[in-house]
Amino acid sequence: MVGTVETKLTELGITLPTPATPMANYVPFVRSGNTVTVSGQVCFGNDGKLVAKGRLGEGVSMEDGQKAARACAVNLLAQLKAALGDLDKVARVIRLGGFINSAPGFGDGPKVMNGASDLMVAVFGDKGRHARSTVGVAALPADAAVEVEGTFEVV
Amino acid sequence: MVGTVETKLTELGITLPTPATPMANYVPFVRSGNTVTVSGQVCFGNDGKLVAKGRLGEGVSMEDGQKAARACAVNLLAQLKAALGDLDKVARVIRLGGFINSAPGFGDGPKVMNGASDLMVAVFGDKGRHARSTVGVAALPADAAVEVEGTFEVV
Amino acid sequence: MVGTVETKLTELGITLPTPATPMANYVPFVRSGNTVTVSGQVCFGNDGKLVAKGRLGEGVSMEDGQKAARACAVNLLAQLKAALGDLDKVARVIRLGGFINSAPGFGDGPKVMNGASDLMVAVFGDKGRHARSTVGVAALPADAAVEVEGTFEVV
Repeated sequence: MVGTVETKLTELGITLPTPATPMANYVPFVRSGNTVTVSGQVCFGNDGKLVAKGRLGEGVSMEDGQKAARACAVNLLAQLKAALGDLDKVARVIRLGGFINSAPGFGDGPKVMNGASDLMVAVFGDKGRHARSTVGVAALPADAAVEVEGTFEVV
Repeated sequence: MVGTVETKLTELGITLPTPATPMANYVPFVRSGNTVTVSGQVCFGNDGKLVAKGRLGEGVSMEDGQKAARACAVNLLAQLKAALGDLDKVARVIRLGGFINSAPGFGDGPKVMNGASDLMVAVFGDKGRHARSTVGVAALPADAAVEVEGTFEVV
Repeated sequence: MVGTVETKLTELGITLPTPATPMANYVPFVRSGNTVTVSGQVCFGNDGKLVAKGRLGEGVSMEDGQKAARACAVNLLAQLKAALGDLDKVARVIRLGGFINSAPGFGDGPKVMNGASDLMVAVFGDKGRHARSTVGVAALPADAAVEVEGTFEVV
């Protein structure tokens, strides 16, 4: 049987990628009690390439930044699926932390980050409504345009 | 009846603003178990204007930066009040995350962030003493000088 | 009796420093339930001097950056030891947050951060495998090259 959340993913035309395996001494997620902490996910697409590379407010457009944020959210879901087996076990998206590769003074990080937030709500409904912090950083792994980390309450 | 913490706020001459409503698919706070996670708050004052705009180590003075950090803390309290109804339900300020809009090499972020930390201890006493991380970021929403996020243990 | 983790520290030739006392209204760690949140630790060595100062991708080499990240991890352990008395009470390293003082476009933050992650796994074994977010920031306290924060599940 396919769960409610995965049915929704199918409706949205989203295929979860094979979750990225960290190439170092850390893991993609840790469960402690009813909380799952997922490592920061950069904006790799399902083809293994960065959806957007470089800085917002400079080379990367708002539209591409939002696509990148959405890709980070899809990658978070892929890790969660690996963690839980069934995405219906997500009781609440607690928090997303958004890191936007930004030229100095770029003030539209929240608009970029909506690409990730909108996806969470599209997929999980009210359970997807989360606390959020968005900041503009000087650099990201592989010069990715966006990185998003997440914490989730699970059953 | 007015609670202990709100009496303290009055003594300190602090009026909590109407908490900001996020203009996107996220929420100002999420409770999970006994923990409340509050979204990153930028340094809007009660008049709805940024207390300080731009970068520390460049256009923004230390004094204005500290005022900005304090404003972020006041905004966290306003969100907490909305979350809990009564600020006396805060058992402990667990963590503040401080993001300082910084010119490269600006090393005095912790001094800026004291504006937020000092307020928490003034308001909550020993329960206000928190873990903290302070970093200097390349950009913040609306070019705000400071953003602070918080996690709180509540009863 | 010396615990398992401290025996491992001795084998690795690591002496924990006297944990740094924050010079402000915050504390080095907060316990809430079974979770200990440790404040961001910058890369001070046991001699009280920064292991590396300045930016990766500019003045600071990869090797020095990794040493700096390792020093941050050692400082996290020193704080944990102060929090718990006995490091064997650590049930799991839940998350490390790595902030790398970075020149714009520096994409090798994760490689720097491995200095901290490798130490956690060397010291705690499988319990040391953690979720992680690594970002490149514009500035850090005292112009340190690296800052790392941590959350830990404890018994």
